[in-house]
Formats: sequence, C-alpha cells, structure tokens
Amino acid sequence: MSSAWENRVSLFGESHGQGVGIVLNGLPPGFAPDWLEIKQEMRRRAPGLSALTTERRETDEVEIWSGIFQGRTTGAPLCALIRNEDASPADYGETGFKPRPGHGDYPAFVRSGGFHDYRGGGHFSGRLTAPLVFAGALVKQILRGCGVSVGAHILQIHTIRDDGFAAAALSAELLAALAAAPLPVLNPAVRPDMENAVAAAHAAGDSVGGVVECAVLGLQPGLGSPFFDSVESALARLLFSVPAVKGVSFGLGFALAERLGSESNDAYYYDADGRVRTRTNNCGGVLGGLTTGMPVICQAAVKPTPSVSRPQETVDLRQKTGAVLSLKGRHDPCVVPRAVPVIESVTALAVWNLMEGMEGRHG
Amino acid sequence: MSSAWENRVSLFGESHGQGVGIVLNGLPPGFAPDWLEIKQEMRRRAPGLSALTTERRETDEVEIWSGIFQGRTTGAPLCALIRNEDASPADYGETGFKPRPGHGDYPAFVRSGGFHDYRGGGHFSGRLTAPLVFAGALVKQILRGCGVSVGAHILQIHTIRDDGFAAAALSAELLAALAAAPLPVLNPAVRPDMENAVAAAHAAGDSVGGVVECAVLGLQPGLGSPFFDSVESALARLLFSVPAVKGVSFGLGFALAERLGSESNDAYYYDADGRVRTRTNNCGGVLGGLTTGMPVICQAAVKPTPSVSRPQETVDLRQKTGAVLSLKGRHDPCVVPRAVPVIESVTALAVWNLMEGMEGRHG
Amino acid sequence: MSSAWENRVSLFGESHGQGVGIVLNGLPPGFAPDWLEIKQEMRRRAPGLSALTTERRETDEVEIWSGIFQGRTTGAPLCALIRNEDASPADYGETGFKPRPGHGDYPAFVRSGGFHDYRGGGHFSGRLTAPLVFAGALVKQILRGCGVSVGAHILQIHTIRDDGFAAAALSAELLAALAAAPLPVLNPAVRPDMENAVAAAHAAGDSVGGVVECAVLGLQPGLGSPFFDSVESALARLLFSVPAVKGVSFGLGFALAERLGSESNDAYYYDADGRVRTRTNNCGGVLGGLTTGMPVICQAAVKPTPSVSRPQETVDLRQKTGAVLSLKGRHDPCVVPRAVPVIESVTALAVWNLMEGMEGRHG
Amino acid sequence: MSSAWENRVSLFGESHGQGVGIVLNGLPPGFAPDWLEIKQEMRRRAPGLSALTTERRETDEVEIWSGIFQGRTTGAPLCALIRNEDASPADYGETGFKPRPGHGDYPAFVRSGGFHDYRGGGHFSGRLTAPLVFAGALVKQILRGCGVSVGAHILQIHTIRDDGFAAAALSAELLAALAAAPLPVLNPAVRPDMENAVAAAHAAGDSVGGVVECAVLGLQPGLGSPFFDSVESALARLLFSVPAVKGVSFGLGFALAERLGSESNDAYYYDADGRVRTRTNNCGGVLGGLTTGMPVICQAAVKPTPSVSRPQETVDLRQKTGAVLSLKGRHDPCVVPRAVPVIESVTALAVWNLMEGMEGRHG
Repeated sequence: MSSAWENRVSLFGESHGQGVGIVLNGLPPGFAPDWLEIKQEMRRRAPGLSALTTERRETDEVEIWSGIFQGRTTGAPLCALIRNEDASPADYGETGFKPRPGHGDYPAFVRSGGFHDYRGGGHFSGRLTAPLVFAGALVKQILRGCGVSVGAHILQIHTIRDDGFAAAALSAELLAALAAAPLPVLNPAVRPDMENAVAAAHAAGDSVGGVVECAVLGLQPGLGSPFFDSVESALARLLFSVPAVKGVSFGLGFALAERLGSESNDAYYYDADGRVRTRTNNCGGVLGGLTTGMPVICQAAVKPTPSVSRPQETVDLRQKTGAVLSLKGRHDPCVVPRAVPVIESVTALAVWNLMEGMEGRHG
Repeated sequence: MSSAWENRVSLFGESHGQGVGIVLNGLPPGFAPDWLEIKQEMRRRAPGLSALTTERRETDEVEIWSGIFQGRTTGAPLCALIRNEDASPADYGETGFKPRPGHGDYPAFVRSGGFHDYRGGGHFSGRLTAPLVFAGALVKQILRGCGVSVGAHILQIHTIRDDGFAAAALSAELLAALAAAPLPVLNPAVRPDMENAVAAAHAAGDSVGGVVECAVLGLQPGLGSPFFDSVESALARLLFSVPAVKGVSFGLGFALAERLGSESNDAYYYDADGRVRTRTNNCGGVLGGLTTGMPVICQAAVKPTPSVSRPQETVDLRQKTGAVLSLKGRHDPCVVPRAVPVIESVTALAVWNLMEGMEGRHG
Repeated sequence: MSSAWENRVSLFGESHGQGVGIVLNGLPPGFAPDWLEIKQEMRRRAPGLSALTTERRETDEVEIWSGIFQGRTTGAPLCALIRNEDASPADYGETGFKPRPGHGDYPAFVRSGGFHDYRGGGHFSGRLTAPLVFAGALVKQILRGCGVSVGAHILQIHTIRDDGFAAAALSAELLAALAAAPLPVLNPAVRPDMENAVAAAHAAGDSVGGVVECAVLGLQPGLGSPFFDSVESALARLLFSVPAVKGVSFGLGFALAERLGSESNDAYYYDADGRVRTRTNNCGGVLGGLTTGMPVICQAAVKPTPSVSRPQETVDLRQKTGAVLSLKGRHDPCVVPRAVPVIESVTALAVWNLMEGMEGRHG
Repeated sequence: MSSAWENRVSLFGESHGQGVGIVLNGLPPGFAPDWLEIKQEMRRRAPGLSALTTERRETDEVEIWSGIFQGRTTGAPLCALIRNEDASPADYGETGFKPRPGHGDYPAFVRSGGFHDYRGGGHFSGRLTAPLVFAGALVKQILRGCGVSVGAHILQIHTIRDDGFAAAALSAELLAALAAAPLPVLNPAVRPDMENAVAAAHAAGDSVGGVVECAVLGLQPGLGSPFFDSVESALARLLFSVPAVKGVSFGLGFALAERLGSESNDAYYYDADGRVRTRTNNCGGVLGGLTTGMPVICQAAVKPTPSVSRPQETVDLRQKTGAVLSLKGRHDPCVVPRAVPVIESVTALAVWNLMEGMEGRHG
C-alpha cells in the first residue's frame, strides 16, 4: 500500500554545510498553509528555547523554493530550505578521525570511506530534524482538515514518569494544549522532577534520556496493509529514522509481554453514536496491522545525548591507536523535549502516507 | 538504499484457503539450498511441536514452483507454496461477524467491506509466517555463506526473564545451539519456570506473552542509510509485520531512557585483530542508523495469544448489537516459542536486503 | 505517484518448470470476476488458436490460490497459478550453451552465471505472458466498472498496415468487437494480406513482426505525475516488459518528428456536453505527461519471432568456439496476434495503477 | 532489481518561481567531480547557444547545497539548486485559463484544481531539464570511471535524416566529439539542411521536431531484470519523462516490424579478445530485457515545440467558451539540439541505476 514513501519525502543537508532541506511530493493542491503556526511548531524543536536545551541559536527561517504559488500548494513537489547559521565548525575538528562514542561518527566514517562531512555529525546530525518538523507541521494541518489530530507528551525523563495516554481522556484540545507547553506532560506534578533530573545531569556534565508518547486521533478503522505495510511497520520505520530513538512500541508495548491474554484483549462494544469502540485500548489502536478506529498510541525511547563533557575512551582512526576524547562546546543535557515535535512530525508523515495509500485502494 | 523491499518479497495466502506462499526476488543464482535444514527450520515454527503449543497438525510441505533448476537457484523469482491441511473451518464461522477481541477481525472486516476471508483470520493469520520461515531459512543459509549468523532466544515469557544477549559471549555456535533447543534460553534454569507459566495459563484457558531477542553476527560496519532506511527502520518494519509484535527495541532499548549518557555510550578500542570494537554494546550494534560492526541485537515484544477460552464481550456486526463470544477449538497458550524462528527469519530477510543494497552502493 | 508498482504485481515461473503465476496486490475487495470472460481472454493469447500461431497446445487452466473468497476478491493478495503441460524439454537441450540469436539466452546465461533454467527460455519465455493476460483480463473488468475501456488491434504485420486508431470512431463497442476477432483489424481488407505475409514467412521457415496499437477510453484528464511517473513512462515501462517489444510510441509517435508544430498541436474546444476536447488527438491523449481526457493511444513494435528454422551462426559457450544452430520444434511464424491481448493487459495494469495512485493523491 | 529509482532522484521547481533543483541519493562517496566539465555540459542544454534556439538567457549557475565536502561526494544526498533569472512572467498571464495547445497546461489545470503555477508551464516546463542535465553530467563522469560512455546525436530534424549509430564505428572518442558539436550529427553533410529546416520553420512562426539517438558503450552483458525492470523499461521510463518525447525505440525499433526474423537476429561470434559479440546490433544491445554487451542504442522522438506564433483555437476555462490564443514571447523553433544532452542525461541516470542494482544482486 504505502510503498510510495520514497516518492514522498527526500531529506538532505548537513549540520555545518550550507543548510538542510526537504522535498515533499504528493501534497494536495490548493492547500493554504498557516505559516505562522508552522513557525511556532518549528520553534518547539529549536534549540535555546528553554533552560533544558543547548544554547546554539538558530532562527531556522524556512525558504520555500517550489511547490507554492499565490500562497497555496500546487501539488508539485514542495522544496523547503533552511540555511545554517551560528555554526562553529572549529568545535568539531577532531571528530573526523576520533569518533565520538554513542554518535554515528565511526560507522559514517566506514560507510563513506572517510569522505563524510564529519562536522557536527554532518548528514547524521539532529539538525536534519528541522526540515522534518517543517514537513510535519504542514502535514498536521492537512490532517487536521481530515479530522485527524496528532500530539505527544513526555512520558519519561530519566526515571521520572508521567501518566500515560492510555488512561487519559484524549481529545484534540488536550493535544493542542500539550503542544503549547514547553515541557508537555499530562501530570504537571512531575514537571519539577523532570527539570531537576535534567539540571542534575547538566551540572555533572552528563545527559539523560527519556520516552516520548504520541497519539493520533480520528483515524478511520482499517488503515494499513498486511504484511509489510502494517500500521506499526509504517510508523516504526519513520520513528526509528529519528536519531537517538532505540525503541518503539504500541499501546501497552513491552508491558504486554507480562500480561495474560484475558488482561490484554480490548473488548468491543457499540457506542452511543453507533460506532464500534473498545473498552480499553491496550493494543494502541492497531490490530492485525490495521487501525481499529481507536486512538493510535505509540512510544519512542530516546537515548541520552551521547555528547557528554567527561573524557571518553575512543580510537584515533588516522593513527590506528586508542585515544581519549574530551568534547567541548554546547551540548543538550536532554533532547527529549525537542524530540517531542519531531516524533509528532514523523508520525504525522507516516499517517498521511497511510491515509493516501488507503484512499487509492478503496477508490 | 534498500527501498527494493517491495521488489523482494511477496507474501500471500489464507489460513483456511488453498494454502499460503511467498515469492522471493533477487536471490543470487547458483546457490544450492540445504533442503533438509530448511525443513528443520520450518519444524521449529510448526504447531504441535511441544506441549506449549497448539495441537493443529500441519506437515508444511513446501512445493517449489519456480526459481530452482537442477537443485540451484537461477536468480529468477522463487515461488514456494504450502498447501493447507487439517483445517477445521467450522470452528471459525462466527468470526465473520463477531470479531474476536485482540485479533484483526474487526479492522479486516471494515477494510474489506465485509468481503475478507474471516476463517481463522484469513490473510491476517499467523499461518502466513510459515512461508516467511521458509524464506528466512533459505536466506540464513545465504547469509551464512557471507559470514553472517542470525539467531534468537526467548528473553521473557510472562514475568520470567532469561539472561540477555548483551552479557553473553555471542558466537555462531551459541546461536546454532539455541536453534536446536525447543525452548531456546541462555540460562537453562529459567526454562521450568517458563514452562510452568505457560501451563498455568493453559489450565486457566488463558494465554501469556513474552519477548524474543535476536542477534546478527558478522555484519560489516556502515550498513544502513539515513534517514528513512536506518538499520533500525529496516528491521523494525519487518519485525512489526509479524502478527502479535507490539514493541521493538535495539540494544538496551527502553532501558536507555533511564540511563545517563555516560552510562550509555559504548567506548571504542582497537582489538587485537586490528579491528575497531566497543567495550560494551548498549546501542545494539547500531549508531546513527548504521551498523557499528558489533552484533546487532534487537528485541520484539509478543503479546499474549488473543484466543482465550473464557467468554468475551464483543459486537455482532450483522445485528449491530453487543454480543458474547466463547471461542472453541485449539489455541496456543503461548506463541512465543514458535515466534522465535519467525523473528529470526524476518530479521534475516531485512539484513539480506540491507547488505544487497549496500554492496550496490559501494560497487 | 505510482511507485507502488513493485507492490502490485509479482510475476514468476518458467517455460518448462512446474508452471507460471502471478501475485496481484491491492485489488479492491468485493469484486466478483466474470471467470468465463477471463477464460475467453486467455484463449486470445493461447497458442494453437489460429493457423498463424504455434501448435503447442496448452489449456492454461488458472488455479486461484488466494485472494478470492466466496467468489469475490477479498483485497488480500490474489495468487494465480498456471501449470505447465505439453512441454517437450528435449527440444531445448542445446540452448543451455548454444544461445539462440535474437533470444535472451546469452545475457541470461551471463546474468545467472550459467545457472538459469534455459529450457524454452525459462523465466524469459513468452509463456510468462499467460499470467499477465489473466491479470489484465481481471483488471480490465475492474476498469470497465469505472467506465474505462481498453482494446487493441494489429496496426501492422510485416509491411501490411491497418488503419490507425487516430482516424477511427473509437467506442467501447468497437474495442469489444476487435477483442472478438482472431485477427483484429479496423480495415478487414488488409486481413488476407496479413495472413499471406505470415503464411509466406512460415513456408520459408522464417517469421515476421508487426505493430500492435492500443487505446484506453474513458480516462479523466489529469492522470499521471511529472517527472518520472508520466503516463507515457508508466505505460512504456510495462509495454517494454513484454518480450519482443522494441518500440513504444504515443499518438502520432515518431511521425511527429517530421511534422511542423502547427500541424501537431491539438486544438481545444468545448464539446456539446460541456467537456473540453481536442479536434485532433495527435498527442495520443497525453500532454505534459498527464492524460488530456481524450483516448490514450499507444503503439508497440513487436520484432519477428527469433526462432527460425534456417541454420544460424552462434557460439558454443562451453567450448568457447563458434557454432551453428538449427532450431527444431514448433515455432510461431508471427506472435503479433497473440501479443494483442498481452499489450492490452499490461496497458490495463499500468492504467489501473495510475488511477489508484491518483485517487489517493486527490482524496 | 532497480526499484530504488524513487530513492535516487527527486526533481523540483518551476519555470518562473525561485528556481529548480534536484536531490541525488546514493552517489558513491569520495568522487571528485570535474566542475568545469559539468558547466560545459549544462551549456549544451542552455538556451541562446546557437541561432537555432530561444533567446532567453540563463546563466544556470548551480549551487551545491549538500552532499559535497572538501570537493568530493560524501555519499549523503546531493542537492543542487539553480536559481531562475531573466524570467518574464508577464508573457504567460493568459495561460492560466487559456491552455496552450500541445502543452500540459490543460491537464495540469485539471490535476491541480486550478492551483498550478501556470507561468511558463510551471513545474511542467522544459526548465526542469536543467537540473537533470546537471545530474546527468555528474553521473556520466562516474560512469566513465567504470568504463561506460554515453553519447547522442541528432538522427533527424523534420524530414532531414542523419546516418544511424547502427552503421557507425562507435567509440568513446566519437561520442566525445559529438558532445563538442553544437549540432551533433554523424554525417556533416546533413547539417546545413537541418539548419535550413529550422530557419524555415522559424521564419514561418512555426516549429519542427526530430529524433535523438543515444548510445551507451561499455556495459557488461546481463544487466537488467525481467519482467518489469527490463533495460528497455528502465530507460523508457526516464526517456518518456522528458517533455516532448512521444516515442522510444531500441536498435532498429519500429523498422523491425517490417523485417523477417532471419533479417533481424544478431548472430553471435567470439571476437579476437575472447569476448562474445554479435555481427549486427539490430536489437540495440538488449535481448530478453538484458544487455548483450553490445552498445545499447535507443531513439527518442521529439515532437515540434508547441509554442508557435500563429493564432490557435483553444478554450477559456474561466468563461467556459472557445477562445483564440496568440502566443508572444521567445520560442524555440526546434528543441531537438537542446534535447540531446537531456536525452544523454536521463539515459545515464537510468544506466547508473541499473548498474548499481546489478552489483547489489551479484555481490
């Protein structure tokens, strides 16, 4: 069904080159984006927003190169460019041959035969998520027009855990409220603890990871396609494209492994509006690889930022010896808050692709 | 890079129709499969193998329809067919309009407008994993010829947990030994507890889930391609195609969320053989979406079999009312042991695809 | 748009193995095929139908392996198998190492390292078009339900030329009448000459080629997608998959090279029904890679059957010397009549794919 | 095999917007492009080069946005941008609702619901071929490093016909010499007649079409993949993406329809260097959809430029009435010379994709 992905999105750029960018194919013609809202969405990902994140400042002005005419999409490929600013390449000189542990430097070196742009991770940098958030912001607007909402919150930072979406009364309004919060959580009481956990790591020159939970409301039942284009497959493919994501789950996820079948199945009933719903949503809105019509709920585990201040053991690929690496420069003690709009964006892109594929199928 | 997946594998069939099958494209010509070994691999997935699994008996004889000539692959598409036997469709009559909770019946009904083959889940049945295991067994042989081994064990059943691959001394021999065990675990001491957990669920007419952990040894560094064809993306896409998988993670997975960066990074060193290795493998052999050259380690959470004996609340889609469903017939109290070769197989298929894409790139 | 092709159709089998077959993905659920009509369509391609074609007799019974339940499509992959009969492999022994000029034997040998199934061309045989015609017959029925008709005639055999579709009053009825004729031509007067040309070649142990012209009626304007999924690209890809096709053109095709712009442009007007039409259809219903709403008209040049009786110069790949090849057995003096339903079928498959892609886009 | 196309090239931009551009995925890392040569190649396509072409002047400076580091490819996506200059949008105002006959205006209007960028054809403009020629120039350099040469000549303008590649002594040197000529022909005697044909059309406010013939030397035998990725399919898909191409053929092409089999088959022999070759190359270097090792030779029919000065019948899509259109502005009387490097470029891109796919397969 949704094998058109390659046709849809093309992402390019490097952390310290000219800039980054994205080409979106297959946008519906005639859509007038709300540019102000897109700008706000991009600010959610931008560094320097809160005390929790890195100090690198980027204005992230998006230049629309194609695909928009008189303020509306034309249906032709939309290319958006974001020029790099405030780059300080000098900080990254050593990474060309002393790979940073936990980063992609070493495999990127091997893959490219040493010809990669190693500055700040180059093409493997989190900077590439800026155009993804642009694309996600645009697609979320298109989805909203179809009655579909996408939103996320921080389920966990280090050992501090927010309530889950499973027990929440989900609504488009709740998701919008979360998007407006700098540290989006369902239970505000956990916020100080999360902030403290990040501050403590920052003070120690260290970093912390976390989990982002994302919900998609308003999807019709029956989206997706067995085998290789299950809803979980389609979303996981994009979620695992986001740097630092090391786990993806749906509904109760790994907790289902510990459950009995009778505790896991979601019972069906006819709701007052005549629609079939389930009493619980343990399966996260997906059964048999298809949407059930209940909210699709997924979690993405984000590993701690690998850039930490303390000296680390590594190798010198030129001299072929061991080496010690001490990273300088500005580093995020916790990328989880900035990852929230990224996770929302790739989820929105995957859902958009699933919906288009589906309509084609049933046309 | 590896967007050729659609070109590679085509899976078809239904649980209670003529049979199931698979078409494999792009096999290397001249390969002489070890048919006996393939048969043994398929027996690992076959029902009725141990007391833990369903009693439905299937011989799962594979008929090679094309792509083999004089005992060797020709490079042309290989089609393999497995005819259905011992089907008892009468057991499944009600599922056409009374969807089983936890199964794909309801979304499949909506997706097909009610025209799906509902017998035993039809195309959404676990039966479709039989040809996948055939394909995986063949591809594992091909990979072995390239020095790549794929193997798996049961990391968890219900609350009983085996040791992890992270702490094990991984070798092709260990993986081969696991493949020969009916209940493959690293720590034999947990086996009786696992068997007891399954037996208890069975006695209660219930079921249990678990986690399968898979390892791939011998991969060169630098496989995979950012953004949308990361190694995690490629593997997760196929792992989430397997029915009942609700979570996928790499290395320490969700546990990384609770860690500090300094506890998570894998330090590099030059090994005695002059190759770069990492002291630990918390990242599961993947950084920046690329292989590091260390074993790729992933986990797949398998939810409990949804078919349980106790009466369940559902709906009658014909009468548009609530209904109660009491499932009869033979049901697996735990599919985790049978899922092991399936997880191995889709992992092998994904890895094969990644390797071929890569060689093309670097040719 | 239509990059889903790989997902759609998987073709497999060999000329003298178990049989041939096809997997169709993405069929709309609930469609009840007219099996009798499909059988008739397959008879149009079958050998032994007229004096013009080879004497090999095949019943070409199609076995539906999956995707049909209670006489209707389920939307799950439909696998259709056609078993080989009446094969006489002994005729083809030498072709394993003495490649037949004009056939794919030699490049297939190189590509497979000598492990190809060389019997009767193996996977490269025209026999593979049997499942394509099955698929085309099914898809033509589905298209008909959307008001789209596909039909073809023989535009040329050797030097004998029929009238073109450009000047004809095209209608679904005309296309249906052509499908019922053993030698479908617009001008019946050319039929005896065509038959004579084939008979003369047959008598001389030789063969002749020709041109098939195909029309698609009822397409909405605006189908297709620049750049790489133009309507011409989509159709040509499949038309050039048909063995023996060496040229594809649209509208006036190569004759446009000799024309002035003022003689080539198709003038627009509003027709009585309020729809935009063109006075002429020199562009074959495609402009800018998109359908204009006029009939799509294309031509496919079919080279003469390479299997001729007279001795031919070739090489002996085992002995690495020159050799002479004298082909025995039954050979088609002219495959053009049998190519007509094949050309129709791949055109129908390409159009179906374009339409589905389009609906998805505009949903 | 080569279904990775969507992953490879992403083309975007409009004739009178910010500019045009292309993203190339999967380039080999470490390649140092010869930028001067690329610039020369782009000049071959640029307007204003000779008296035969339009007067619009464009410098077509290429800005490399990503994928190049220290003068070499990194293997990450290469994005190249070409800014629009010297646009005179006022010339094109009417085309928004009075579609130009022979252009894509009308189907683009329908496809986009009237939201397309109609200025100068927008995304459907020949301007999009500028980044294609950039990409082709780069890929031709890469192919040259693999011993593969791509070149083309003008086979026909209006009724004036050059000699064909079939009879020529093909060499990389010959192809290079053709690339250096403003009006590349094999037989210089036809050049004045071609120039006169164009001048006559120009004087009459009219235009002429032609045929470009392209050759690829140095390909190994066995490239390509049946069924849907035949060499002809792969090349035709891209050739038909080029605006104005209405026919594509290989070897003798449509002339094969008139031939006997005995006149068409290419006899094999062992050449002095021990390699298998054919005495003739009527099949254009492709048999069974695979390369034979002989030069691949194809032809592309280019229709006359639809923009002619004389008044033309069209419709007014706003008023829903008939209308008359008189085009002003600068128009190419013959795009064939400028099409030569475009045809070479898409052929090179298709061949590159085939070769990469193949190496992956046989690795």
